[in-house]
Amino acid sequence: MSKQVRTAIEPTREENYAEWYQQVIKAADLAENSDVRGCMVIKPWGYAIWENIQRILDGMFRETGHRNAYFPIFIPKSYFEKEAEHVEGFAKECAIVTHSRLEDDGKGGLKVAGELTEPYIVRPTSETIIGESFSRWVNSYRDLPLLINQWANIVRWEMRTRLFLRTAEFLWQEGHTVHETHEDAMVETLKMLDVYAEFAENYLAIPVIKGEKTEGERFPGAVSTYCIEAMMQDRKALQSGTSHFLGQNFAKSSNIKFQNRQGEVQHAFTTSWGVSTRLIGALIMTHSDDNGLVLPPRIAPSHAVIIPIYKTEEERAAIMAFVEEIRLALKAVRYDDIPIRLEIDDRDMTSSERGWYWIKKGIPVRLEIGPRDLQNRSVYMGRRDKEAKDKQGLSFEELVEKLPVILDEMQENYRQRALELRLSNTKQIDGKEEFYSYFTPKNAEQPEIHGGFADSHWCGSTDCETQIKDDLKVTIRCIPNDAKTEDGTCICCGKPSKRRVIFAKSY
Amino acid sequence: MSKQVRTAIEPTREENYAEWYQQVIKAADLAENSDVRGCMVIKPWGYAIWENIQRILDGMFRETGHRNAYFPIFIPKSYFEKEAEHVEGFAKECAIVTHSRLEDDGKGGLKVAGELTEPYIVRPTSETIIGESFSRWVNSYRDLPLLINQWANIVRWEMRTRLFLRTAEFLWQEGHTVHETHEDAMVETLKMLDVYAEFAENYLAIPVIKGEKTEGERFPGAVSTYCIEAMMQDRKALQSGTSHFLGQNFAKSSNIKFQNRQGEVQHAFTTSWGVSTRLIGALIMTHSDDNGLVLPPRIAPSHAVIIPIYKTEEERAAIMAFVEEIRLALKAVRYDDIPIRLEIDDRDMTSSERGWYWIKKGIPVRLEIGPRDLQNRSVYMGRRDKEAKDKQGLSFEELVEKLPVILDEMQENYRQRALELRLSNTKQIDGKEEFYSYFTPKNAEQPEIHGGFADSHWCGSTDCETQIKDDLKVTIRCIPNDAKTEDGTCICCGKPSKRRVIFAKSY
Repeated sequence: MSKQVRTAIEPTREENYAEWYQQVIKAADLAENSDVRGCMVIKPWGYAIWENIQRILDGMFRETGHRNAYFPIFIPKSYFEKEAEHVEGFAKECAIVTHSRLEDDGKGGLKVAGELTEPYIVRPTSETIIGESFSRWVNSYRDLPLLINQWANIVRWEMRTRLFLRTAEFLWQEGHTVHETHEDAMVETLKMLDVYAEFAENYLAIPVIKGEKTEGERFPGAVSTYCIEAMMQDRKALQSGTSHFLGQNFAKSSNIKFQNRQGEVQHAFTTSWGVSTRLIGALIMTHSDDNGLVLPPRIAPSHAVIIPIYKTEEERAAIMAFVEEIRLALKAVRYDDIPIRLEIDDRDMTSSERGWYWIKKGIPVRLEIGPRDLQNRSVYMGRRDKEAKDKQGLSFEELVEKLPVILDEMQENYRQRALELRLSNTKQIDGKEEFYSYFTPKNAEQPEIHGGFADSHWCGSTDCETQIKDDLKVTIRCIPNDAKTEDGTCICCGKPSKRRVIFAKSY
Repeated sequence: MSKQVRTAIEPTREENYAEWYQQVIKAADLAENSDVRGCMVIKPWGYAIWENIQRILDGMFRETGHRNAYFPIFIPKSYFEKEAEHVEGFAKECAIVTHSRLEDDGKGGLKVAGELTEPYIVRPTSETIIGESFSRWVNSYRDLPLLINQWANIVRWEMRTRLFLRTAEFLWQEGHTVHETHEDAMVETLKMLDVYAEFAENYLAIPVIKGEKTEGERFPGAVSTYCIEAMMQDRKALQSGTSHFLGQNFAKSSNIKFQNRQGEVQHAFTTSWGVSTRLIGALIMTHSDDNGLVLPPRIAPSHAVIIPIYKTEEERAAIMAFVEEIRLALKAVRYDDIPIRLEIDDRDMTSSERGWYWIKKGIPVRLEIGPRDLQNRSVYMGRRDKEAKDKQGLSFEELVEKLPVILDEMQENYRQRALELRLSNTKQIDGKEEFYSYFTPKNAEQPEIHGGFADSHWCGSTDCETQIKDDLKVTIRCIPNDAKTEDGTCICCGKPSKRRVIFAKSY
């Protein structure tokens, strides 16, 4: 049996989810590992997804009053020492620059030289270095709110890495804002959480749960951390964005003070919030299938590919003229505020080979054009949300008119499918035995596949949280913002509880 | 005498050019120094200029078939050792990561720990790390040309730094391409030089000379380096972009081989090319004046600012309604393919204070709207290319219709002015005495102000080049691409020469 007859990706999700993930990335040519400890190379098709994420989020940040800036990649060790919890959280996995020169080692190689008087840390996050600038920028309440965002690369030297999900270097944006009052900063924290949730749902087609992290899962140095959590196809949770209310902690360590409306000098309130290239991992694991990558149209690098099919030079000339006509017509069509983006794949391969190439890359729509289509002035359309063989004829006019509608339909289909997966794998569980059974893998060969999300009562104690983590590798993903007050008993200790939280295994 | 009556920037260009440059940056709030050795903070108004540079260049790269990707920031020391000339050129000023952890030092501070088995260099340029990927991506002539670009941060630890012009960390783009033949790679090298020149002239309004570098000024490891050179207002040259033909040098050290059309395996030909945040330095020094920053409209973060002027709450309400009407009307007007970008400055300051604030920031057009303007449904317009007091009334309709035309006019004015400066300060010099006198400062207090560019004969010897550099701090900026073959004698040694080259002092 040929491989193509089965699925384009081997193993399937069912067979080995973790390996399937790597194979989807490979088949879609999104990224690859490098020789550099835990660092990845983001290839053009993967990077184009990131560029779309940037373009859309950047517009949303701008509309909410934020401006971009850029701060040094290096953080002096002394800055890092200022916030105790913060350094505790990041000191164990950082890249440290200690020297400034390479010299001939006398053996045909190079040795490091020029030791620095103070080592620099490659930023694992920029609160401390940005705080240093903010302490100079902020003097009066008139300077507030200060709403800044940075697009940057970040380094955290994790030991176990995985393309997009956890890499030593990654790309992200980090918002850093300064406010007059506790309330203003909290409003900002939640507003940006909403921006992330809206982006995830409307553009990535990833439905998310908004909520607050427990104390143990907070950002090091934050007063409170909010997050959006999504369910992947293996039922595990993936944290897809965080927004931190930092209170006056970083304002104190960075000395961000201002004269308030009463004429007194006080410390400001700050927030920070970020999403990273990890979102691409979320995108892959939410939508892709056993034939490769699936991309929601609003985030896809290209919306459609034209695959011309011909045998003779004569046919080629006629078909390519029609292709050009379609290209020009679609260029004028806008989808989601940008012109339709088109690939034309005229490579010397069978139409089936080319079709599968683009299926694996997740392009939303494939348009085959052969001699018969040319005669009818039509195209033969395949959609990534349908079976590969399930194609449909469309006239030139229908195509130009309907393509944006079809793309919207696909976008919504993907979102619905992801939402249904989460809803049907989220369970209100009130008994401890059921809870433990829910999170125990049914299949020894696929230990990752288990129940899903549990919506269960928790008394609020760190002991119970730790107990469950140790027993099941299950953590509290968040206390949902929309959780209702409700009487119940803690799933772990049985003591009274006032609300349910989301428990899950996670990435 | 009040300061405002003189000039907004002190000192003036005439008084102290180097200090004037720093003061323009400060007054326009573009960037500032940080505590981190030679690293700058790019503030929102400065970063927005960089974002415009990115947006426009990125579109030009895309139209010429390039795709963006992202490669690791760290380069293993062993990669760096592969290309001898290359390492020689970059080893003396690099940031080296040697450790991966911070530990409690027992004295309330932190000490570095977790020494790496192989040190990493923070990229000073990415030929070697990208070459490693390319060696895997390229197998057959069918994979070529491979046309990749990367937007990234770069670190070169220079000792003497200056905001934008020379900083330890800077932002740039680096194109890296692979080709089948010498000729293809050379065509690419020159094509990208043309892209840079077109961008500089048409968007930055900076006229440039395209040419080739001499051997001594080449990129370390390149076969030939091409550049665009511009004249700043102190008559010094600033290299504003480079494009390198790398021959097979890096293909050999990185092992980039492919099967050619004859079925043989051979090394490929590569190029690389880049521009950086240095362009913002060029922009400042080309156009700005003694009142602050001057921005060509096509690169300005915003095209115009509205300054409402009122005394009473009643006036305020009426004027702000008119401002909103103008905002909406201008939002629908496109200039250079993007909607008009507008600032509204309603701060509690006099209209003159606000006007000067925006003059110093270089915004092209200021629109004052007071009670009388409201009555006439008009605005009072100031242009950055005219005197601050030289304002002009425009009706609402005229404004909406003419603003793009005015912006175009300003763009062209700036370009013309810069071109005239260069032409009137470039001289064909054939006598050695005149040459030495031309480059000797007339004014001891302003040693930087001197003749300008000299278009003189050079025999081609490195000795002559060195002699002139040692005597006058003057270098050959480039051998212009359009230089005619012409008989003459070398300006230094008097031996026969076949062409003129551009000599100048430079940044």
